[in-house]
Amino acid sequence: MIIQKPNPEATVAQVGEFALIEAITAVLLPEGSAPVGHVLVGPGDDAAVIELPDSRVVVTTDAMVDGVHFRTIWSSAADIGTRAAAANLSDIVAMGAKPAALVVALGLPADTLVQWVLDLAGGLKAEAAKVGAVVVGGDIVRSPVLMLGVTAIGSVAGDRVVRRSGARPGDVVATTGRLGWAAAGLAVLSRGFSSPRVLADAHRRPAVDYAVAARAAEHATSMCDISDGLVSDAAHLAAASGVRLELLTESLEITDAMSDVGAALGADPLTWVLAGGDDHAFLATYPDEGAVPQGWTIIGRAVDQERGIEPLVLVDGREPPDIAGFTHFSG
Amino acid sequence: MIIQKPNPEATVAQVGEFALIEAITAVLLPEGSAPVGHVLVGPGDDAAVIELPDSRVVVTTDAMVDGVHFRTIWSSAADIGTRAAAANLSDIVAMGAKPAALVVALGLPADTLVQWVLDLAGGLKAEAAKVGAVVVGGDIVRSPVLMLGVTAIGSVAGDRVVRRSGARPGDVVATTGRLGWAAAGLAVLSRGFSSPRVLADAHRRPAVDYAVAARAAEHATSMCDISDGLVSDAAHLAAASGVRLELLTESLEITDAMSDVGAALGADPLTWVLAGGDDHAFLATYPDEGAVPQGWTIIGRAVDQERGIEPLVLVDGREPPDIAGFTHFSG
Repeated sequence: MIIQKPNPEATVAQVGEFALIEAITAVLLPEGSAPVGHVLVGPGDDAAVIELPDSRVVVTTDAMVDGVHFRTIWSSAADIGTRAAAANLSDIVAMGAKPAALVVALGLPADTLVQWVLDLAGGLKAEAAKVGAVVVGGDIVRSPVLMLGVTAIGSVAGDRVVRRSGARPGDVVATTGRLGWAAAGLAVLSRGFSSPRVLADAHRRPAVDYAVAARAAEHATSMCDISDGLVSDAAHLAAASGVRLELLTESLEITDAMSDVGAALGADPLTWVLAGGDDHAFLATYPDEGAVPQGWTIIGRAVDQERGIEPLVLVDGREPPDIAGFTHFSG
Repeated sequence: MIIQKPNPEATVAQVGEFALIEAITAVLLPEGSAPVGHVLVGPGDDAAVIELPDSRVVVTTDAMVDGVHFRTIWSSAADIGTRAAAANLSDIVAMGAKPAALVVALGLPADTLVQWVLDLAGGLKAEAAKVGAVVVGGDIVRSPVLMLGVTAIGSVAGDRVVRRSGARPGDVVATTGRLGWAAAGLAVLSRGFSSPRVLADAHRRPAVDYAVAARAAEHATSMCDISDGLVSDAAHLAAASGVRLELLTESLEITDAMSDVGAALGADPLTWVLAGGDDHAFLATYPDEGAVPQGWTIIGRAVDQERGIEPLVLVDGREPPDIAGFTHFSG
């Protein structure tokens, strides 16, 4: 077949499904159609086939919808692809596992530009490449609203997976990654501003240090990625483990940019740190301080849960205010 | 934690994300939270973990959007779940592989009823159970339009995967499964009718005989599931294999119900058979007639492709009319 490159300024409706898929495949596999590395069958067949180092397969999926999780007026296609990949890759790493592949279900309005879709694919590919993962397949359909369903596949890296349920009384609680940056950025963007740039950009695309997070795999007793907010995800982990987590805010960093924005908007920046979710930071527990890897910050301790008595999380010794993480059906 | 059953007549916005997820998990794992069989970690953690019999992992994803791929006024939630699962399970089986697990990214309007979502989960679960697969995880988000992104994971069943690219001149072409039923059903429903029931139901939920399809794994030289339509998918397979496929319509069944509807609507039912895609039938090539398994029907032969000269598919010796399969961005 002779492949004609579609005009990137054309809409997806103008070029049609098959030409669009070929153009995306060319972005994902610029080397040609030959599969590379652990990819035995890449895009173009009924399904992709990847060879994992272990037959224990780790899988997670996330949906993102325009106007709910991002806005195309604030974020570029590459930003959105980066964020969608990061959300899934973080979940694999949070199991102490190693990401291998992504597949992407994409719903596109008919007037979406081809170039926009190619940039999205480029963002997905680049973020996946940070952990040695590749985009191996997908599906593209017409949709009245732009939406992505991204699924990540990984394999168990060591002997075990790190669950949410393994924290024990006496464990130390630690985090790695930014906390509250994306939430502060969203507050900025929502009010029509685009600075401080560092915060707006933190909302647009998270900066996840997967290598530091992966160090938890060896000694962490429990782990999760922070997607709903520190307090909310700490409560999930505490519930799964049957412990209470006591956190200290003195260990949590509030950057100057966050303080400035808080002052300008009349908001307490600590709220973003405790309740913001889109940075894809990580929360874990370790048996003792010596087990906490470099790049992780100790922020508290796990204690006995007085059975059935809330709260599951204390912040500075007190029940946290009602700043539960983003609930997708509220508001 | 005390789990309170949400009122199934409440909306997802009323009960919130976490209560909804717990109610869905109760549908998927009625036995309790203990993982079963090959599921090492089920819903509720950052990612699921499944143990496959082989480290070669087969993965595919499909998106479905309300008003594009289904209509909630025509199809029940269980129908839609069944179809979404079947679309993905068929793709795994079409590689000669064995499905193991599904994950589901779900976008829901705020006024969706909890019971509707539970019925959807039940449909997904029941269809997956037909092939020994289980729903191991998902993500639920707010969306202005109902949409699903379903991903299926499987493992290579025998020594090899069956690609689209393996057909050779001289191979016989065979299909299994219904052809045109769902397309005829869609024609009926689109005109406001709901009978013949057998055709309307074929659109609502495909009846896929995975066991018969799986028999292709041993001897088929190439294979795909028919999702775009027989002629369209035959052309994809022919292009990937570098052959031409010559099909004979005398081998294709036009049921009485289809003939009746064709007469009533002034449509040629053969068009549905040649171009309809939603039955999830299967197309394969075999080295000779003796290799064609029981339950498969021989419908033609692969021949040398005169290089670069279209068409890739002949129907009764002639170039087929322009009845290309459903292109998602057309119309």
